[in-house]
Amino acid sequence: MSHHTKSAVEGRKKMIPLPKEYRFAVAAASFKYAGRNDLAAVLSGRPAAAAGVFTRNRFQAAPVLAGREMILAGKPVRGVCINAGQANACTGEEGVMRCRMAQEIAANALGVAPDELLPASTGVIGPQLDMDAWRAAAPALAASLKAEGGKAGPVEFAKAICTTDRFPKLAWGQVEDPDGKAYRVLGVAKGAGMICPDMATMLAVVLTDAAVSVRALQKALASAVDNSFNRITVDGDTSTNDTVYALANGASGVACETDGELEALALALEDVCGSLAYMIVQDAEGGTKVARIVVAGAVDARQADMAARTVGNSPLVKTALFGRDPNWGRIVAALGRSGADFDPDRVSVRIAGAPLFVNGQPVAGDVAGLLAPHLDRTDVSVEIDLGAGPGQAVLLASDLTHDYVSLNAEYTT
Amino acid sequence: MSHHTKSAVEGRKKMIPLPKEYRFAVAAASFKYAGRNDLAAVLSGRPAAAAGVFTRNRFQAAPVLAGREMILAGKPVRGVCINAGQANACTGEEGVMRCRMAQEIAANALGVAPDELLPASTGVIGPQLDMDAWRAAAPALAASLKAEGGKAGPVEFAKAICTTDRFPKLAWGQVEDPDGKAYRVLGVAKGAGMICPDMATMLAVVLTDAAVSVRALQKALASAVDNSFNRITVDGDTSTNDTVYALANGASGVACETDGELEALALALEDVCGSLAYMIVQDAEGGTKVARIVVAGAVDARQADMAARTVGNSPLVKTALFGRDPNWGRIVAALGRSGADFDPDRVSVRIAGAPLFVNGQPVAGDVAGLLAPHLDRTDVSVEIDLGAGPGQAVLLASDLTHDYVSLNAEYTT
Repeated sequence: MSHHTKSAVEGRKKMIPLPKEYRFAVAAASFKYAGRNDLAAVLSGRPAAAAGVFTRNRFQAAPVLAGREMILAGKPVRGVCINAGQANACTGEEGVMRCRMAQEIAANALGVAPDELLPASTGVIGPQLDMDAWRAAAPALAASLKAEGGKAGPVEFAKAICTTDRFPKLAWGQVEDPDGKAYRVLGVAKGAGMICPDMATMLAVVLTDAAVSVRALQKALASAVDNSFNRITVDGDTSTNDTVYALANGASGVACETDGELEALALALEDVCGSLAYMIVQDAEGGTKVARIVVAGAVDARQADMAARTVGNSPLVKTALFGRDPNWGRIVAALGRSGADFDPDRVSVRIAGAPLFVNGQPVAGDVAGLLAPHLDRTDVSVEIDLGAGPGQAVLLASDLTHDYVSLNAEYTT
Repeated sequence: MSHHTKSAVEGRKKMIPLPKEYRFAVAAASFKYAGRNDLAAVLSGRPAAAAGVFTRNRFQAAPVLAGREMILAGKPVRGVCINAGQANACTGEEGVMRCRMAQEIAANALGVAPDELLPASTGVIGPQLDMDAWRAAAPALAASLKAEGGKAGPVEFAKAICTTDRFPKLAWGQVEDPDGKAYRVLGVAKGAGMICPDMATMLAVVLTDAAVSVRALQKALASAVDNSFNRITVDGDTSTNDTVYALANGASGVACETDGELEALALALEDVCGSLAYMIVQDAEGGTKVARIVVAGAVDARQADMAARTVGNSPLVKTALFGRDPNWGRIVAALGRSGADFDPDRVSVRIAGAPLFVNGQPVAGDVAGLLAPHLDRTDVSVEIDLGAGPGQAVLLASDLTHDYVSLNAEYTT
């Protein structure tokens, strides 16, 4: 069994191999943005197993509460409907009521039952959903779904769920068995952590035409998210709305049941989610670089994660990255306060492959000069060895720039 | 028993009531900066009880290792000698050896024993101390100490230990008993957390002429630091060199022995340290504002602290503060990921006294308009009630600005 994954930024709609029996719909509802689509739905032609992973923020948006309830019920679904511009977060019981009303309006227009349509919202925290805008946009959403010739495809869907994203985010893959039977995986995402000013924020939908049980899909999705979306940071701020849904409708005729089949599915989900996660860091607000922080030699994986996150979220490390400064001093100072256990005399740091700090001591020589061309690149690797055990972790982090400050200081609701 | 504390930014040398029998010395050693003093010492005319609180960063600078050893020995000291420009951090065993050599050079010049002179360093991480510069500057340091007429006072001392600080930081107080007997407390500090680019960073020296045991002084200092320097944040980055020393030489003739006397001393230390800590946030790199974040209603003090730190270190909250944006959404999203335990429906947030968010819901009306004049001020209060218990915490935080990014991205060692 083999699998391949690809990703594209934009404009390759015709080339995207879609999982079978999924259709897309978009409409302009003017929730916040004028002159663009901001309401999007994806429908499966047949009932699909559904899985979901949600924000762990204690403040949870209404669509997170409603969506989790549907996922926990474990019933097959027909699709997902997402709006951009209004996050429906911090809106109390009325927010949950309006979330259900909005899904009912969309489901009626799209010809499915309300409890078969998963909700998600992204946008400004606080205001209640504008129900009149939902009602006004519903016919256009329905018309978009029925339009032949692919008026709305995954790229239009990905664009409609964007808020301050600079580009839509799609990734896909295919898993083939030795008999040549195949199923496909398609992922769409927007945002990044809570990079977007006031936008509550990271959403992704992963579609497959594999046949898999709800329980196995949930397990595969949770593992894929742990190794992709949970391994990126822009500013350490997590949102009230973060949601990743996976739908599996079985339309490929390929069933995932054995351990090997389920592992291949999990790997395909992880590859697609990993590509989307990378794109989210690429699109970090004001970001100019993606740093791949690899921590090895920690006591255990948890401590490796603590070390990687402290480095990846350090404003000093992030500004140094923006300034193309191979500043090992800030990296080791961040390691030292991370809470990870280690002997400073066994710590080593490499930037772009060059050892700057070995066994607790700086390396002599003009390392900065050697590194200059590497630090000009958009992708920079930071490898840390704590010399304390087998624990490893990887984190993708953006840099901290003037544009980040401008975008987040000048924004008002 | 009553006590008064004051603080000054600069130029009030004649007005500063000094604790008895302390003298200051400064010299220009060109460790990093030309044309300014960068070597400073304070000496007590008689042996003084000494206490010290040090960085908890796992990477600890050589003067932290050497200074802690002296404090743990518990012997009386005669003074403190500090250099600016070279942090002597990440310098291995040779760093500790050079720290001891430097203190020996300074002690010989100043006429005290090397094991009576506490060390501290601030500046660039990595390079070894320049011993020739110490030797060359020692005679000038000695001459400065002996010069009559106050050539070197606490203001000169405070200026000499600065790195990228915009102003020297001093605070003082006096404690009087009913009989009119009094002792004084003087504090000097530099830096803030690890705000300074590559500078390893926060140092403070607190002097008193009270008579107190080493053990009681250590206890009072630890408590004062917990309620002052440990209650501020600039960027969440802690340094390899953070050190606070307290010296008590007894020259006032006032002994602190009873619980009441020790409490008054602890309070006086806390007031002086609190003033210095406030100045450090005022002087935060690129900072334009000091936010006083007060969390109440947490399950316990530890959770209140977690909540206050997550809000105070959030890049989104800090950029909003810079942008004068009363953005409660970012505050509640930070609370939600802080790890503190609470029911979102019982959370309330006030900015500059105005309730923006009450019991989990935003307050209707033009609160932004009402708050505009308050957000133009340099000091902004953020009051959070988690509605979950009696736990409280206070944190002073700076904002995140373009100047912070510039200073930290454009700096190179």
